[in-house]
Amino acid sequence: MLVPIKSDRLRVVLVSSRNPLNIGAAARAMSNFGFSRLRVVNPYDRAFREARSAVGAAAAVLAGAEEYTNLAEAVADCTLVVGTTAVRHREPQHPIRRLEAGARLIRKQLGWSSPVALLFGSERFGLSNQDLSHCHWLLRIPTSDQHISMNLGQAVAVCLYELIRNGRAVGVSPKRPLATSGETELITATLLQVLGASTYMSPDRAPSTEERVRRMVRRLNLSTRDAEAWLGILRQVLWELRSGKKGG
Amino acid sequence: MLVPIKSDRLRVVLVSSRNPLNIGAAARAMSNFGFSRLRVVNPYDRAFREARSAVGAAAAVLAGAEEYTNLAEAVADCTLVVGTTAVRHREPQHPIRRLEAGARLIRKQLGWSSPVALLFGSERFGLSNQDLSHCHWLLRIPTSDQHISMNLGQAVAVCLYELIRNGRAVGVSPKRPLATSGETELITATLLQVLGASTYMSPDRAPSTEERVRRMVRRLNLSTRDAEAWLGILRQVLWELRSGKKGG
Repeated sequence: MLVPIKSDRLRVVLVSSRNPLNIGAAARAMSNFGFSRLRVVNPYDRAFREARSAVGAAAAVLAGAEEYTNLAEAVADCTLVVGTTAVRHREPQHPIRRLEAGARLIRKQLGWSSPVALLFGSERFGLSNQDLSHCHWLLRIPTSDQHISMNLGQAVAVCLYELIRNGRAVGVSPKRPLATSGETELITATLLQVLGASTYMSPDRAPSTEERVRRMVRRLNLSTRDAEAWLGILRQVLWELRSGKKGG
Repeated sequence: MLVPIKSDRLRVVLVSSRNPLNIGAAARAMSNFGFSRLRVVNPYDRAFREARSAVGAAAAVLAGAEEYTNLAEAVADCTLVVGTTAVRHREPQHPIRRLEAGARLIRKQLGWSSPVALLFGSERFGLSNQDLSHCHWLLRIPTSDQHISMNLGQAVAVCLYELIRNGRAVGVSPKRPLATSGETELITATLLQVLGASTYMSPDRAPSTEERVRRMVRRLNLSTRDAEAWLGILRQVLWELRSGKKGG
């Protein structure tokens, strides 16, 4: 990440969760993406106890989870409260932002100052109107119109991923240095020798073939390592072809 | 989405999955994000049967899932095969791309032509070296160094979300038209009358106060609807203040 976000300022708040697997999955996604502050409001008691007894990646997050009996207390120290919703056309008391745009605002707020709460409702009903009245605005994951409702653990994972993602991440692995033009040209030259030694390249078509082969080799985008390997193979083939001719 | 991706060209391939809940969760994420082509390679039989009996959002995806006994057959029709991995420093036989950058390449390939396979390994071991030898390159979700391993269903959800996300999604809900400058100025003027009628604004500080109040009201970014409500409140307050003075 170019700009590390202040992940300890985000509170993930699960409201009235009923399923211990979902509470555990939310905690696991938090640990995967570097968030630690979990708050649960009015959880189904047994679910929370079962989730807390889990081991593995989520254990530390669950052990530190704070339990509240009402939402107002759970978000009292937060300067921005964002509710998640699957619904597209609620009464527009709240602006609804798509996750991509909403996450930008949350990141900005986390960088500025004080805690931000991200609310997830119960598996069956989502956040109630009462819960929503505590929110500054709502966040919507851009799901398909036919299947808008996500699994709780998956929704938490997708939202947290969007918060930490980096659009400027580079596409090429630094572990794979590319071959230089010199190395590529050496392969081209050797390949042309191979073609010349075989019956592929008739003398009258040689110049156009040479250009075509050169472009083809360039398009392989070989790494230095692979370039060496290919050169070895081509030299071996060339040697075989030439010694075959001598022999024949 | 500005450029709808050809989601029917993506094959989500689960290799040796052991847990019916995870197969179901992967299918649910697919239906959430508009993908339909699930392939399972060598699944634990009972897990696949249990997963298929599920109802709900994922049922259609699971009903259409194709089963294979080996990976080569499962990806035979694909022009690009991408494996997911949590590992950062494998032997660099394959380029490893971060999800953000890798998804751009997958989207491009889906737009061009033919099927792309996205592979997820078993819950415990991930993809084997044998599986990886079928891949053109590997995809890595940018998880925290301390907790790199994601739950299968959550990993599928995050990857598919990245494929359909739209960085240009706008931040303001179209359901909330903003107040015009005229409306905002009417509020400013009324608020200034309220301040003048109260003891807040001393006559000698009036001009600087007026500018300060104007800027404060602008920063509220009121919607038309809220502007009307606030104007009503201010007028009521103003009326009360004036009639109180008359009475007193």
